[in-house]
Amino acid sequence: MKTLKVGIAGATGYTGIELLRILLNHPNVEVVLATSEKFAGKKVADLFPYFAGKTSLVLEELNDGEIAKRCDVAFSCLPHHSAAEHVASWVKAGLKAVDLSADFRLQSVDSYKEWYGDHAAPGLLKDAVYGLCETHRDKIKKAKLVANPGCYPTGTILALTPFLKEKKIDPDSIVVDAKSGVSGAGRSAVLESLFSEVNESVHAYKVGKHRHTPEIEQELSRAAGRPVVISFTPHLIPMDRGILSTIYAKAVGKTSTQETLAVLSSFYKDEPFVRILPEGSLPKTKNVRGSNVCEIGAHFDSRTGRIVLIAAIDNLMKGAASQAVQNLNLLSGWDEKTGLSLPAWAP
Amino acid sequence: MKTLKVGIAGATGYTGIELLRILLNHPNVEVVLATSEKFAGKKVADLFPYFAGKTSLVLEELNDGEIAKRCDVAFSCLPHHSAAEHVASWVKAGLKAVDLSADFRLQSVDSYKEWYGDHAAPGLLKDAVYGLCETHRDKIKKAKLVANPGCYPTGTILALTPFLKEKKIDPDSIVVDAKSGVSGAGRSAVLESLFSEVNESVHAYKVGKHRHTPEIEQELSRAAGRPVVISFTPHLIPMDRGILSTIYAKAVGKTSTQETLAVLSSFYKDEPFVRILPEGSLPKTKNVRGSNVCEIGAHFDSRTGRIVLIAAIDNLMKGAASQAVQNLNLLSGWDEKTGLSLPAWAP
Amino acid sequence: MKTLKVGIAGATGYTGIELLRILLNHPNVEVVLATSEKFAGKKVADLFPYFAGKTSLVLEELNDGEIAKRCDVAFSCLPHHSAAEHVASWVKAGLKAVDLSADFRLQSVDSYKEWYGDHAAPGLLKDAVYGLCETHRDKIKKAKLVANPGCYPTGTILALTPFLKEKKIDPDSIVVDAKSGVSGAGRSAVLESLFSEVNESVHAYKVGKHRHTPEIEQELSRAAGRPVVISFTPHLIPMDRGILSTIYAKAVGKTSTQETLAVLSSFYKDEPFVRILPEGSLPKTKNVRGSNVCEIGAHFDSRTGRIVLIAAIDNLMKGAASQAVQNLNLLSGWDEKTGLSLPAWAP
Amino acid sequence: MKTLKVGIAGATGYTGIELLRILLNHPNVEVVLATSEKFAGKKVADLFPYFAGKTSLVLEELNDGEIAKRCDVAFSCLPHHSAAEHVASWVKAGLKAVDLSADFRLQSVDSYKEWYGDHAAPGLLKDAVYGLCETHRDKIKKAKLVANPGCYPTGTILALTPFLKEKKIDPDSIVVDAKSGVSGAGRSAVLESLFSEVNESVHAYKVGKHRHTPEIEQELSRAAGRPVVISFTPHLIPMDRGILSTIYAKAVGKTSTQETLAVLSSFYKDEPFVRILPEGSLPKTKNVRGSNVCEIGAHFDSRTGRIVLIAAIDNLMKGAASQAVQNLNLLSGWDEKTGLSLPAWAP
Repeated sequence: MKTLKVGIAGATGYTGIELLRILLNHPNVEVVLATSEKFAGKKVADLFPYFAGKTSLVLEELNDGEIAKRCDVAFSCLPHHSAAEHVASWVKAGLKAVDLSADFRLQSVDSYKEWYGDHAAPGLLKDAVYGLCETHRDKIKKAKLVANPGCYPTGTILALTPFLKEKKIDPDSIVVDAKSGVSGAGRSAVLESLFSEVNESVHAYKVGKHRHTPEIEQELSRAAGRPVVISFTPHLIPMDRGILSTIYAKAVGKTSTQETLAVLSSFYKDEPFVRILPEGSLPKTKNVRGSNVCEIGAHFDSRTGRIVLIAAIDNLMKGAASQAVQNLNLLSGWDEKTGLSLPAWAP
Repeated sequence: MKTLKVGIAGATGYTGIELLRILLNHPNVEVVLATSEKFAGKKVADLFPYFAGKTSLVLEELNDGEIAKRCDVAFSCLPHHSAAEHVASWVKAGLKAVDLSADFRLQSVDSYKEWYGDHAAPGLLKDAVYGLCETHRDKIKKAKLVANPGCYPTGTILALTPFLKEKKIDPDSIVVDAKSGVSGAGRSAVLESLFSEVNESVHAYKVGKHRHTPEIEQELSRAAGRPVVISFTPHLIPMDRGILSTIYAKAVGKTSTQETLAVLSSFYKDEPFVRILPEGSLPKTKNVRGSNVCEIGAHFDSRTGRIVLIAAIDNLMKGAASQAVQNLNLLSGWDEKTGLSLPAWAP
Repeated sequence: MKTLKVGIAGATGYTGIELLRILLNHPNVEVVLATSEKFAGKKVADLFPYFAGKTSLVLEELNDGEIAKRCDVAFSCLPHHSAAEHVASWVKAGLKAVDLSADFRLQSVDSYKEWYGDHAAPGLLKDAVYGLCETHRDKIKKAKLVANPGCYPTGTILALTPFLKEKKIDPDSIVVDAKSGVSGAGRSAVLESLFSEVNESVHAYKVGKHRHTPEIEQELSRAAGRPVVISFTPHLIPMDRGILSTIYAKAVGKTSTQETLAVLSSFYKDEPFVRILPEGSLPKTKNVRGSNVCEIGAHFDSRTGRIVLIAAIDNLMKGAASQAVQNLNLLSGWDEKTGLSLPAWAP
Repeated sequence: MKTLKVGIAGATGYTGIELLRILLNHPNVEVVLATSEKFAGKKVADLFPYFAGKTSLVLEELNDGEIAKRCDVAFSCLPHHSAAEHVASWVKAGLKAVDLSADFRLQSVDSYKEWYGDHAAPGLLKDAVYGLCETHRDKIKKAKLVANPGCYPTGTILALTPFLKEKKIDPDSIVVDAKSGVSGAGRSAVLESLFSEVNESVHAYKVGKHRHTPEIEQELSRAAGRPVVISFTPHLIPMDRGILSTIYAKAVGKTSTQETLAVLSSFYKDEPFVRILPEGSLPKTKNVRGSNVCEIGAHFDSRTGRIVLIAAIDNLMKGAASQAVQNLNLLSGWDEKTGLSLPAWAP
């Protein structure tokens, strides 16, 4: 197996570290470059002692020329807007790229502008593929640029897609209530993320205004074959990792919990990273922690006619870093599971 | 002020301890009796060292005759079914009672039977008053038996009542997604409540089947003047206390966040224990921890036509013990705020 | 009872908020002024919604003239160095002051210089009284300026003082291993205090170099009547509040756990805020959370000849804010327990 | 590489699950059997959904004959006393065994009797090897029965051994203060391990009486070449995993932090699973979580003449399951790192 040379731009945030951890253990790649604005010049293993003996990488300043020269594939863990600029340069230089920011997720420049502001490389949007492997596998295999999905969208889109494709739910009735661990807020020194601010508390934030909303809607609309608008409310809860999305929608026609689960099981029957739980079992984020799995459970409530879908992922894994590696595997023509086989990690 | 003699049956669970803590600090009462099945014979201050110097109470076996003889008012923190039996005996003996179990919350024996099983004192249901002070104040003042509301119902009913009364939302569109701290599961040694099982994880439970559902629906139906059926999903999150309820409903007619908040502010303008947050502010359970307050925020999402209401309470306080004391104050003709004036406790 | 007018400089850190919470509930004082560098101009109740209805205070910029004009007593929750400067001005203007920083805790200017740098008001050191009420009560009653003890020193000094005074331990054998909740690190947006950095982890910090070391040694030396040098290691653990200090020292002569506990019980027999646990019981920080109590347990290990003392406090209460109010009560000639009578708060 | 057939007795506790997770990912072994008293008859993947697709194992009742027939090597995660009985039978049948209980750790039957009670297979003690790979590697390679070390002893023995062997510390001055996550208390439904009992709190337990004391002393005595008696205090802190041991001892002769670290670095220079931190860096349990590494830091305090050693491990990994696999690798003549190469896991 030819070893691919990969680089990571923005390697010292929570997603970057996780990506590095996975790639260092990936049999087909060599991490040749990692950048950090704050820590350029420092050894990765000095900042994160658990990498001692695993890598001798020294963090570098971000230099697109260096990335183009030394890497076959590059991952961007840069913030949105900045990501587009750099990724565009890599793709132009002939690299394949996986962007973990939001910059290439929305196909519509107008929608991007509304939610994020001006786009730094709008011409590249048409070439970008939305990197949810389970729903865009064939396109990803041929892509040059993959837009890795957001953490909230991943679980929600996976849970809803089969029902929208098969017209089993009313697209106008969807409510998504999501709960995330604090690592989702990133590794930035802000008051709101201090231990004593978020510990022993729960709150909603950006109600009706979270930037993952148009991304979810774009993919749900694609599945439904018509525009879908949803209510989406993210919450912050006191744990490091994990997102649980509880999703409510009106069933179309008569159904049951068993039938609902059958829709999921059938749709995902060959998927290595989607686990449908049997009736009576419900997802827990601890059951997917540290793994690339999305765990989904369902209940049909005959009293209200609503289907309740519950999806659990690890926000830093299937919601970011390990999904990026799943995309790398697809891009590179490798077994999709390469380097991603470990089970979740509990307690 | 005449001092009332009060007793607590089932004083060593999390609710019982909290109730004792509040009552020991209440200027108008003397706690003369506390029972415990497991710990009868032990001093309260030996089990819970922080009560040393605050009370010399010795836990007793539950004996209805003793309660009748020595107390003016009795609180039951017993489990459902058992509660009904004992509370009935106290009321018969002429005491006033506040029952913190579910036994007298549902007015319909049939509904009780469906969700809980046989009722031990069905004849008493007609005399019981549902103890949500903000919506049943006048009846509580004259009641002999108050059914203290469940933890989940409290926040949800408070948030929705104004909108149902004023026909501002579609009663058929209500979805309630609630997140609770682990103390809500009680002080019982079960595998599911072990630290390493629930820490660093979140999960839904009893989806579509939680026993607080008919209680919420009873009160919402009363407010709406017609039957209301809701989707209700409780979740367990890794913190000691607090419930955040995120509630979704279709608005009737045109509205805005400001108007939505105005409905709440106006409805609760004289309530000492309901705090409506201004636009842009959202409830946090840490903001109500240790207090009798229900904090409510709202957002109208013009994209979906849904109103999102968010209510935060401390499940052991406004969701149990301090609400029971608020009921005691009403029952006794005292200022409703007596013994309940402390602000929340953060960090 | 004449109402005293008090002010708080630096009111929006964790200690300042806690102090405000206690003082708002104190029957003999009126909080007339609170300052904040960052939030001047904002209402306290807008920043901390749980103070809504409890106070209409608007945060002000720090102005010593205003404090002198409007307050009888002022509390400083300012950082060290800055504190000295402002407190000196208040005392000069005739106010009584309680300083919660380290500036007036060390009697020796040289020692202060070694551990903290230049002192901003060295001339005032001789007038300052170390505010550990249990060991300096009489001096505090007459003081103009009280140096409120550090969080780590409080529990450690209380546990060791009786043994040093009565020559029951070898002063050269003392090892103090302390574990603190994260609120002790303050309300500053630094990477090290982020939830995902400190959650699910424990580490020691400033080993052999923590600035509370000379403060502990000063007071232990005073008790022993000779210089005492100790090993002191602070640790950060993933919880909001609480400090547990585990203390090791060689016993002098033959002893037993019972005798060891008797030394403590006898020494503290009249103290309202020191709780000595019986043999077989051990302190927990949850048993003192939210209270002004220091809980102490002990064990004599005949195998090693060492006495193990364990002291638990709430770092923001007996380790800061409530101890400051205990000092205020002494300063003002009031019952020492005024406003401090609530038991700890669990779960 | 010949695949070894392994069995796990007691596979559904926290240690058993972790062991299974590692072994399922180990290239040289096949897990052919796993037992559980409570869950016999259930599929592992039904109890722990994250094993779905990783194993089709069905839990069995414990049957020594079956283990002997089907396994080459067996691991016991049974409680002490019971372990000895079963392990003895496996060894008699010719299997190699790794026992994770305390039954074969103490070489002295008398010491076992004093701390644990009667031994079920005292005749086997002389054949058992203490399984701390770094200090008993050669014996482990030839052993039939390995006694896997306790969680507390592992870090403490590793930190102290070099100093005792090289006479750099006074063996009579050792104080060990250890802090453990709650998974160390096991997966048993007891009140003391409930989330709301241990969360937001810290306490010491079994002061001077913990059963790991004689185990630590046995190995320290071996290193010192003379009897060593220590003060050992375990604490419970609110996190899932990890043990931090802070160790105090008087230095012999003049030394420095640098020299102290050099002793460690030199002693462990070829060890793949011991990481000595440079001056100024201190261990964190999060830096070893999920890995087989013991991270050690040191400080010499010239003020007191004491060396402070700090050792961090993951109690379920290097303190139990992964160390058992390290022992398996040694026993089997494989590279010691096989299946244990993943770095720690943060955040």
